[in-house]
Amino acid sequence: MDWTSLKCAANGGAQRALESLDALADRWTKLPTGWSGIYRVAGGGIDFLVIHFRETLDQLIETGRRLQLSPWGEFATVQDEYLSVVELGLYGLTKRVAERVDPRDHEAWSRELRSELAAEGKKDFVRRRLEPVQPGDMPYVCYYPMDKRRESGQNWYALTLEERAALMVAHGEVGRRYAGRIVQVISGSMGLDDWEWAVTLWAADPLDFKAIITEMRYDAVSARYAEFGPFLVGKRLPPGGAADLLAGGER
Amino acid sequence: MDWTSLKCAANGGAQRALESLDALADRWTKLPTGWSGIYRVAGGGIDFLVIHFRETLDQLIETGRRLQLSPWGEFATVQDEYLSVVELGLYGLTKRVAERVDPRDHEAWSRELRSELAAEGKKDFVRRRLEPVQPGDMPYVCYYPMDKRRESGQNWYALTLEERAALMVAHGEVGRRYAGRIVQVISGSMGLDDWEWAVTLWAADPLDFKAIITEMRYDAVSARYAEFGPFLVGKRLPPGGAADLLAGGER
Amino acid sequence: MDWTSLKCAANGGAQRALESLDALADRWTKLPTGWSGIYRVAGGGIDFLVIHFRETLDQLIETGRRLQLSPWGEFATVQDEYLSVVELGLYGLTKRVAERVDPRDHEAWSRELRSELAAEGKKDFVRRRLEPVQPGDMPYVCYYPMDKRRESGQNWYALTLEERAALMVAHGEVGRRYAGRIVQVISGSMGLDDWEWAVTLWAADPLDFKAIITEMRYDAVSARYAEFGPFLVGKRLPPGGAADLLAGGER
Amino acid sequence: MDWTSLKCAANGGAQRALESLDALADRWTKLPTGWSGIYRVAGGGIDFLVIHFRETLDQLIETGRRLQLSPWGEFATVQDEYLSVVELGLYGLTKRVAERVDPRDHEAWSRELRSELAAEGKKDFVRRRLEPVQPGDMPYVCYYPMDKRRESGQNWYALTLEERAALMVAHGEVGRRYAGRIVQVISGSMGLDDWEWAVTLWAADPLDFKAIITEMRYDAVSARYAEFGPFLVGKRLPPGGAADLLAGGER
Amino acid sequence: MDWTSLKCAANGGAQRALESLDALADRWTKLPTGWSGIYRVAGGGIDFLVIHFRETLDQLIETGRRLQLSPWGEFATVQDEYLSVVELGLYGLTKRVAERVDPRDHEAWSRELRSELAAEGKKDFVRRRLEPVQPGDMPYVCYYPMDKRRESGQNWYALTLEERAALMVAHGEVGRRYAGRIVQVISGSMGLDDWEWAVTLWAADPLDFKAIITEMRYDAVSARYAEFGPFLVGKRLPPGGAADLLAGGER
Repeated sequence: MDWTSLKCAANGGAQRALESLDALADRWTKLPTGWSGIYRVAGGGIDFLVIHFRETLDQLIETGRRLQLSPWGEFATVQDEYLSVVELGLYGLTKRVAERVDPRDHEAWSRELRSELAAEGKKDFVRRRLEPVQPGDMPYVCYYPMDKRRESGQNWYALTLEERAALMVAHGEVGRRYAGRIVQVISGSMGLDDWEWAVTLWAADPLDFKAIITEMRYDAVSARYAEFGPFLVGKRLPPGGAADLLAGGER
Repeated sequence: MDWTSLKCAANGGAQRALESLDALADRWTKLPTGWSGIYRVAGGGIDFLVIHFRETLDQLIETGRRLQLSPWGEFATVQDEYLSVVELGLYGLTKRVAERVDPRDHEAWSRELRSELAAEGKKDFVRRRLEPVQPGDMPYVCYYPMDKRRESGQNWYALTLEERAALMVAHGEVGRRYAGRIVQVISGSMGLDDWEWAVTLWAADPLDFKAIITEMRYDAVSARYAEFGPFLVGKRLPPGGAADLLAGGER
Repeated sequence: MDWTSLKCAANGGAQRALESLDALADRWTKLPTGWSGIYRVAGGGIDFLVIHFRETLDQLIETGRRLQLSPWGEFATVQDEYLSVVELGLYGLTKRVAERVDPRDHEAWSRELRSELAAEGKKDFVRRRLEPVQPGDMPYVCYYPMDKRRESGQNWYALTLEERAALMVAHGEVGRRYAGRIVQVISGSMGLDDWEWAVTLWAADPLDFKAIITEMRYDAVSARYAEFGPFLVGKRLPPGGAADLLAGGER
Repeated sequence: MDWTSLKCAANGGAQRALESLDALADRWTKLPTGWSGIYRVAGGGIDFLVIHFRETLDQLIETGRRLQLSPWGEFATVQDEYLSVVELGLYGLTKRVAERVDPRDHEAWSRELRSELAAEGKKDFVRRRLEPVQPGDMPYVCYYPMDKRRESGQNWYALTLEERAALMVAHGEVGRRYAGRIVQVISGSMGLDDWEWAVTLWAADPLDFKAIITEMRYDAVSARYAEFGPFLVGKRLPPGGAADLLAGGER
Repeated sequence: MDWTSLKCAANGGAQRALESLDALADRWTKLPTGWSGIYRVAGGGIDFLVIHFRETLDQLIETGRRLQLSPWGEFATVQDEYLSVVELGLYGLTKRVAERVDPRDHEAWSRELRSELAAEGKKDFVRRRLEPVQPGDMPYVCYYPMDKRRESGQNWYALTLEERAALMVAHGEVGRRYAGRIVQVISGSMGLDDWEWAVTLWAADPLDFKAIITEMRYDAVSARYAEFGPFLVGKRLPPGGAADLLAGGER
């Protein structure tokens, strides 16, 4: 944000800009599918993180365009954007399928994977994970992109499916201990953006971000194979919260 | 794009700028040889990707100059440019030639390569690959540069031609499974720009970009030897599409 | 700082900006909990380092907002921000607990750690470390972020707790030799920002920063496992010190 | 170049700027020693590459100053500069001298090297290489800096002179196959700038840049020991060519 | 430097700015202790290198402040700054002390080191090295920061003192061959800035920078353990030299 220009905007320009952001935030809670969250960032040298969940790439482009063309957009510079697709990450289930189907038989593989999902009645669980919603009592966000390494001696992609599944299942056990304290969204971005995955965590207490990431750093899979991008931590702007962004500032 | 300046441009400046982009896009579809595509980018922190296919370096320089000097160019900053030459990548054919000619005999090598191409009546296929056209029903683009690694223990350039051909043929098999869903252009840029190749993919469904790149990441050749640059994903601007870029924006 | 704009600000704008910084600095010494220090930086290509100690993330966000919206903020650009949580780093104590409790029994582990802290009556020591105060006779600051390496052959996170504790205890012995000359604050930022820790040192003589960092560089733990981020060295602005920042400058 | 400011410059400012560049280019072809070439760059995100050949560092500083202070300089921002000294790179000759003189005997080494150059009547050849001239029929340029690696297991500087000479002689054989198609200037920059060498190639056909660099990439010396910086490819501006730079642009 | 603004400054602003730089340069030659040199840089994409030698950190901060607030500072942007402390680098002497004292006995170590310095009557030599002066007949400067590597297999800090001393003594022998042609200042910056050392060389002939750095690159210590930062080469501005910086420039 160019705070100085915003403060000094003539003819109620500042109020109009802040109201336009609140209006967009409000509209984004009433979409038929998908939603967007605006987060005030602490650290990182940036002011806001905006996360858009949408069903199509076209909707994402259009949402970004609307934000950029809003009165608020006149005072904001987009520093970075990241594109990814929400993923299930069912390494456990994959492991079971791999025991009875050859992964190179692509048709059989897809059919068995789908039947496995159906058989276990996990449809709801799957939907919940693919259409993530931020719990109302977890206003804090932690966002970061990551890669798996492909270095000589530490190459995730040269491991067998069995080795990867074993490492990921152990990794998942750490995550499960934070159930109820942290909600996690994994989205994949191979072929879409510069890292391989993006991770979004929500929590009621931002210290839990530090706790889970620290504990996982000692996992075999993180310790040896994970490469982390920049971390952003912030708090979701409440409805109408943009209106207060200049409150108490002096000229 | 400096969207704020564009929005606020006096005397119909915005309309003139957008019309000039549509006019260039139109002219670029009517060239004797070559064409250009303008893509609205999602993610990556940039607004547009413009791809120019031309027969000569002079034509590329002139095309860039015209875009820069257009009314649209007054509101746009070139963030990066990349220069490369469309390639065939016929590792399969090369492998056959290598079985009967010594690659160090440069004259014989060139002659046999050409005769092999002719004998197989692949002339049309070759032309199609060297003069790529984006299918009308595949409006989405994925673009990224890449290198092959030259690290100790993972050095592509220290492999024999046979080893490289075997790895590339296996790699190509994954690609062939996406025939009909993805059209791929490989262009080489050694000696021309900072990476060794650039890859351009077109698809009807942008999720196919994620699918093919993910699957290929587990190939031996990608897992061990590929280094990827930044990925850009976007959608081609339809004819006259620039005129709508400010539509619905509020002041 | 945009020094030229500050110098040229009309209508007493420079004085108002400098006074607003002094006023914030003064207010920050009278908070119920926490405090902030403003440091004039030497080197690094930046002008000021501002360190905020607060109890909650919300307080940190609000403090940054106030600074940004102050008259001083109109002449300053935030180049970077860093978020971390003050840590104890009790590897010695942890080592003792590890001898009688299995670290994978998370409940027992937490209980024993807390009882160990209580039993040794270290409550005060702990509080002093968690609520650091800069000694009045140590106006100089040295700040840098750091990581522990996870490279093949030099992977801190693949060491056992025993190995890590032994290395850290030896490392701590070097630190203890500087007691009275250097006060050190370790804060953790895994899951919060881009490095794993931030280190803040205060001293009466800035040459002691060079002495301790040089000596520690030959420690096994630093030599093999530490990765250092950018270093900043500066001197705390005394109360009312902002008012003198333009003194003696010519137009 | 700030093309928009140039286009909009009042009172014939654009014409004056372009004429000043043509005037400098003209003056640089009439120097007692040395010359400068201005190249329109394709790709790389920059507009011009200017190469100055001069006898002294003082002349280089003065040449840069004149360009910066010219009317053209008001619309141009220097993005990067690179300082290097044209080199002979006579590894073949060095190899012969090394067979009869100990390289650690610095006086004998210098004397023998010089006598070897004289004895072979290579004076002219040497001068031609040290005072390079771009052939009139080779308007295209390719410029890049490079290093030799010093990694564990791939350390050029830990090889013996014999090993290096053998690798470089093989490397030179590839280069010789391009005689007549490519003219090459090697300049050294250890102690002068951030890479160890800079390479300038000229050609009549820019595709030859791709051909030679690709072929050399498979050389043992490039495959294992070369590290390449950014590549720039462009075309030399003909005499009076700056005057046309805005031709055909619309407002 | 913003040369265009400087050229166009109204009311004699350019002259005032240049005169203020000459005035500061003049004042800096008459300090009770310490001095500053202003160098016109060739290459590197920057205009000036300013080196300040001062006794205290406070003096350095104050010197930088004065330069920034001068009329000249209005047209200059500080791109980077670097903080370090001039060092002796007496590896030879250290080696002798190490033969009779255990380096872990810190008190004895310091005492012996000091007595060794006194006994050899090196006091003058030491002072000359700690208070460096640029010889009047060596107007050229070469400046660069450097690190010693801590990689697996190439870790300087994991070597014994004996191994390091042997490598440095051999390294010093190369340096001694340039006595009379190059004056060298080593300053340490561990704990003060981002690299471990900074090196400043002065010479009458800038080609000697290339010669010494090239020769040293083949030393075992540089080949295996040195990591080099950006190199800057320039020429000292003579007294009153700033006044000529715009001479001959056209508008």
